[in-house]
Amino acid sequence: MPVFLTSSDADFEQSFTALLGAKREDSPDVDAIVADIIADVRHRGDDALLELTEKFDRLALKDANALRISAKEVDAAIATVSDAERSALELAADRIRAYHAEQMPENKTWTDASGATLGWRWSAVSAAGLYVPGGLASYPSSVLMNAIPAKVAGVERLAVTVPTPDGQINPLVLLACRISGVDEIYRVGGAQAVAALAYGTKTIAPVDKITGPGNAFVAAAKRRVFGKVGIDMIAGPSEILVIADKNNNPDWIALDLLSQAEHDESAQSILITDDADFGKAVAAAVDKRLETLERRAIAGVSWRDFGAVIVVRDLDEAAMLSNRIAPEHLELCVADPQDLSEKTIHAGAIFMGQYTPEAIGDYVGGPNHVLPTARSARFSSGLSVMDFIKRTTLSQMTPEALRAIGPAAATLAKSESLEAHGLSVLARLDALNT
Amino acid sequence: MPVFLTSSDADFEQSFTALLGAKREDSPDVDAIVADIIADVRHRGDDALLELTEKFDRLALKDANALRISAKEVDAAIATVSDAERSALELAADRIRAYHAEQMPENKTWTDASGATLGWRWSAVSAAGLYVPGGLASYPSSVLMNAIPAKVAGVERLAVTVPTPDGQINPLVLLACRISGVDEIYRVGGAQAVAALAYGTKTIAPVDKITGPGNAFVAAAKRRVFGKVGIDMIAGPSEILVIADKNNNPDWIALDLLSQAEHDESAQSILITDDADFGKAVAAAVDKRLETLERRAIAGVSWRDFGAVIVVRDLDEAAMLSNRIAPEHLELCVADPQDLSEKTIHAGAIFMGQYTPEAIGDYVGGPNHVLPTARSARFSSGLSVMDFIKRTTLSQMTPEALRAIGPAAATLAKSESLEAHGLSVLARLDALNT
Repeated sequence: MPVFLTSSDADFEQSFTALLGAKREDSPDVDAIVADIIADVRHRGDDALLELTEKFDRLALKDANALRISAKEVDAAIATVSDAERSALELAADRIRAYHAEQMPENKTWTDASGATLGWRWSAVSAAGLYVPGGLASYPSSVLMNAIPAKVAGVERLAVTVPTPDGQINPLVLLACRISGVDEIYRVGGAQAVAALAYGTKTIAPVDKITGPGNAFVAAAKRRVFGKVGIDMIAGPSEILVIADKNNNPDWIALDLLSQAEHDESAQSILITDDADFGKAVAAAVDKRLETLERRAIAGVSWRDFGAVIVVRDLDEAAMLSNRIAPEHLELCVADPQDLSEKTIHAGAIFMGQYTPEAIGDYVGGPNHVLPTARSARFSSGLSVMDFIKRTTLSQMTPEALRAIGPAAATLAKSESLEAHGLSVLARLDALNT
Repeated sequence: MPVFLTSSDADFEQSFTALLGAKREDSPDVDAIVADIIADVRHRGDDALLELTEKFDRLALKDANALRISAKEVDAAIATVSDAERSALELAADRIRAYHAEQMPENKTWTDASGATLGWRWSAVSAAGLYVPGGLASYPSSVLMNAIPAKVAGVERLAVTVPTPDGQINPLVLLACRISGVDEIYRVGGAQAVAALAYGTKTIAPVDKITGPGNAFVAAAKRRVFGKVGIDMIAGPSEILVIADKNNNPDWIALDLLSQAEHDESAQSILITDDADFGKAVAAAVDKRLETLERRAIAGVSWRDFGAVIVVRDLDEAAMLSNRIAPEHLELCVADPQDLSEKTIHAGAIFMGQYTPEAIGDYVGGPNHVLPTARSARFSSGLSVMDFIKRTTLSQMTPEALRAIGPAAATLAKSESLEAHGLSVLARLDALNT
């Protein structure tokens, strides 16, 4: 049974704090193994990749050239995809592309009163690598969500690595790569793939930024290569918070809660409602759906261990609790979701109204489905084109501008005992004044 | 002697690659000590802070209330600051504020052809902590560069921690805090300060994001608390690349190179020029300035060990090498710096023309002086208001929009074997279609 809390109860604060602090994930400590794998790939390059691929993926490749999945292989695999799936993937890609194109920020320069010209310019990362998990977690939607922002941002070279256990690969993943404009695909996974992307081998040129989900080995490898290259966030188990009033279909809300719970036994689904009877009706609807759901084993454990129904006095209280939870996904199934959304400021993504189930956002809404987990929406954002561009600030002084603001720089340099800093300004001012 | 390379030499590529790969920093491994300190602060709170402050800063405080530096103490300290320093700091603050205000991104929502309303909203981190080093590296300019973007972003609560070894504090640091609108100042440093900001104690409430420079202990602590809170980049030693043609005063360029070299023995200063004689003249000017510079011991080691003069065929080659270096600071002292700046796309900050010494950017230019080091300008940006805000994506479907795009979501959910995802869409579509 999930916890059932009522905000007016005397012990509510204690129970809510316990819910917030619940440790949902125990990552195995694989750091030492990962360090060895990275060192091996740095030292032996492609030979290490071939050996590790045979060991972990039970796949013996004849040589390093075979690491790359050729355009011909992609053609053959994607020919097996049904028309319905192809159309769905293309619709998703078009919508994700359109949304992310809106995100591209402008360059800006201006001249201020001193005569100084200031501004900045955005530019794309030259090369990016996208890690795609193999096996069951090999989601084509994740390929779209990572690859399309990179290409919209203007990344010239986008390389995908994907393990192919026993040689198996999901044709939809290859189709998603094709639709997204991925430039290179390699059949290699795990920490060895991350090491190859970060440091390069003869076959795989190094990249500047690595994104994409992965298991504990992949996460540890990304942490280790961070600094040498940029990485995206290390995502934890998925979460949803639904704030719903009584004017909702309990079964729809139950399915929304279960659509996170079915991801992972460590996922967390929480309902906040201002109507206790509605809360009970949703809990009953969850139980009923759990009788038949394909992934009921996983979803059932998640709902039992980490699920919660919280009954509040009013929606303002719901917003306040939501901000403390800072959920990855937030559904607002209330009469005025716009108004409530302005109060729920710490959330990765907000889905407004009863016709916007979170699953829309996983696939076809347009916004990214890679979102901050584990309360990190308090300080971070979902994946976007911003992850694949960087800003260079620009300054140009005129003699007049230097005369106007240079003396203050020299004063501060002196107060920080950085003489050369001050002299670099004063030498120019002296020349201008003679 | 710094290296002197010529791009037309046969062994240039090898020498340049060695320069790029030079390891400039050996961070001591303090991770185990830092882990203990963090655990101690989490466990014992203020008592640990008092004990560690007595141990590391030789400062015995009478109780936890004394950790906070009162407004009265700040008043008394800043009364000792000279008018010239106060004016310089205020001019710097005004310019930094004006520049960063331009960075604030817009919220955006739109309705697309399907009837779906999409968009995003930016919101500030609620509370941020700024680490300020003590002793010699206690730079008021760094306070401005961290605190002003936070306040421009709308951070409600900004707490500073600064160690006060033997009770000493730089009045200019306190003035910079006052001018920037810092809300709380605590006399505590090291890993214990980072732990207090991340986890909170009875006296210091926890924050959501921690920025600011620090020594190896501070850096290790920031890495450890990352995830619990957000952190800024972990900066390495400073760097400058100057691209200059022969129409420059060699002494000015020498001072610009030395203004990085004087920071740290591990700093790196590189000149690229298309005129070998000019390169030699700058090297001679550096040597001459090193005879008298106050920080000649530090600057001399940096220039000797990591300095370089590179002679190239033309400015296009200079731009290509600059992009491989991806410098933190880039000065373009050439006839058409605007044109060259469009080719040097991997750089933290660009300073254009001979009247824009990099030191202007350290203090009064307006752009931030916290910039990506160690080639990370290939994939990351300097500090900005973006570090103190985060984006929530917004979606709202109408029944029509759900009819238009929902079936594709259900198809993709099925292909990923996520049944509840599909059902959450299909249950709504069924209701709409009956």
